[in-house]
Amino acid sequence: MGTAQPNALYDLYTQMGVRMAAEPPMDLPTMRDMLEGLAGLAAEPNDVTYADVDANGVHAILITPAGARTDQMIVYAHGGGCVTGSSASHRKLAAHLAKAAGTQAIVPDYRLAPENPFPAQIEDLITVHHWLRDQGYAPEATAVAGDSAGGNLSISTAVRLRELGEPLPAAIVAFSPWLDMEVTGDTMKTNADTDALISPEVSGMMASMYLGETEPTNASANPLYADLTGLPSLFAAAGDSETLLDNAQRIVERAREAGVEATLEESPGQQHVYPFMAGRSKEADETISNAGKWLKAKLGH
Amino acid sequence: MGTAQPNALYDLYTQMGVRMAAEPPMDLPTMRDMLEGLAGLAAEPNDVTYADVDANGVHAILITPAGARTDQMIVYAHGGGCVTGSSASHRKLAAHLAKAAGTQAIVPDYRLAPENPFPAQIEDLITVHHWLRDQGYAPEATAVAGDSAGGNLSISTAVRLRELGEPLPAAIVAFSPWLDMEVTGDTMKTNADTDALISPEVSGMMASMYLGETEPTNASANPLYADLTGLPSLFAAAGDSETLLDNAQRIVERAREAGVEATLEESPGQQHVYPFMAGRSKEADETISNAGKWLKAKLGH
Repeated sequence: MGTAQPNALYDLYTQMGVRMAAEPPMDLPTMRDMLEGLAGLAAEPNDVTYADVDANGVHAILITPAGARTDQMIVYAHGGGCVTGSSASHRKLAAHLAKAAGTQAIVPDYRLAPENPFPAQIEDLITVHHWLRDQGYAPEATAVAGDSAGGNLSISTAVRLRELGEPLPAAIVAFSPWLDMEVTGDTMKTNADTDALISPEVSGMMASMYLGETEPTNASANPLYADLTGLPSLFAAAGDSETLLDNAQRIVERAREAGVEATLEESPGQQHVYPFMAGRSKEADETISNAGKWLKAKLGH
Repeated sequence: MGTAQPNALYDLYTQMGVRMAAEPPMDLPTMRDMLEGLAGLAAEPNDVTYADVDANGVHAILITPAGARTDQMIVYAHGGGCVTGSSASHRKLAAHLAKAAGTQAIVPDYRLAPENPFPAQIEDLITVHHWLRDQGYAPEATAVAGDSAGGNLSISTAVRLRELGEPLPAAIVAFSPWLDMEVTGDTMKTNADTDALISPEVSGMMASMYLGETEPTNASANPLYADLTGLPSLFAAAGDSETLLDNAQRIVERAREAGVEATLEESPGQQHVYPFMAGRSKEADETISNAGKWLKAKLGH
């Protein structure tokens, strides 16, 4: 816990891969427990306090860095394939981003698939946005952010808010977003040897649990098919060793085609959600710092 | 995460018991991951900050409640049979106790058995005590506390400090201490039907991993056999549904026989380490509050 070495993310992913490939197949409680271990990678962010929140029925933790603006909020959607992960596994990552942006963050424990498939996760995030409005947060003083599946959910939630005719957050941050529910991306093949965690099998298994009866080309579940017109600006980052690298590349391209300002940060040699190494690797710290500065600008500090 | 219901501890222990009893036998990484889930039970303690610490080579988290005395420190030894658990699994529990006592706390990630059997855990805790002295904490301004195996380690560390002729902490708190390495206690039988987690099998398995080649009657590993003369005052608590109930009862009796002031709190109907439910159950809150007040008195607030 908290003593991560430079290769800690790669090593942990490799161990997880070995455990998932073993026989008999890993059951879901074991997989969920295992992936909670990602919490141990980041350094403890100093000078941050936490509180439980009931956001109209959705449990979340509220993260408040010392000196942060308390009128601005990042809604941080944790990753884990919409099947695993929690406010606990992503507490430190979200807190590092909140510190870099000088804002508060809220990490909802949205319902998980397969017990609650798409669109339960997006519904819960919409509920959190409504709760924030009830609490007096102006939509333009909020941002959405997430990693992996949380990157998908952040974009999908923004799309859904636009469809509902509701005011949008000011910005979207997506670390290693997991978008391609068809598992057909080029880098799924070309980076197969360098990605320590995400194989076509893992991605496909998670996608089938998330989607349930929903088609993988459904634009509400797969932002690569969504109309992105009118969405807030997008900051995407991915490691160039990732099988999901082209998910970030493609969403940035699609966003720009739709007239949305979009920034892509590719970090050489980095793994899936390398910002998990916040406070432990310079690549993680650099991306979090850049995302934080970008958020500050979008939120109008 | 963090939405624990009144029976959440009982239900989680029951689920864990079912998973541990399944075939094939649970492997150690899975058991460790599973037991980290205890972290989800307590409410998030408000107004507390955290920091990573390198205590002369032992990683730990430092817990600082707002307004706490920063010249007083609880060394909190987490439970988990000396085989599982971490600063992460016990962060909230230790923070609730620190808040109640109005002090800081430090939760070391001591080395785990069976990779590192007895006495590695005690050595690491001694290292933390030396580090605290280096940092300027007066021994009499420190206390040791822990749950389950951490209760054993807290007492064993105090015994070891006395043997080394070093100054002692001011007080010892032990929640549901796990002391009986022989697994011969009466309540192991009489509470077999009411304890949802700790069976003779579980306790024996953990003890054999902790002890390695050491005898279960070794006084340095089993405080029920230790000379407790000259130890600081002891506050022990246990649920009266626990198979380990008589461990708390016996150590309090042994302490009193040795001339040590000792207090026992038995909480009706409660499970092993019921303070995990801090902020979620009145029994947990009451015991933590009582332990905190007791610590304040011993530390001379």
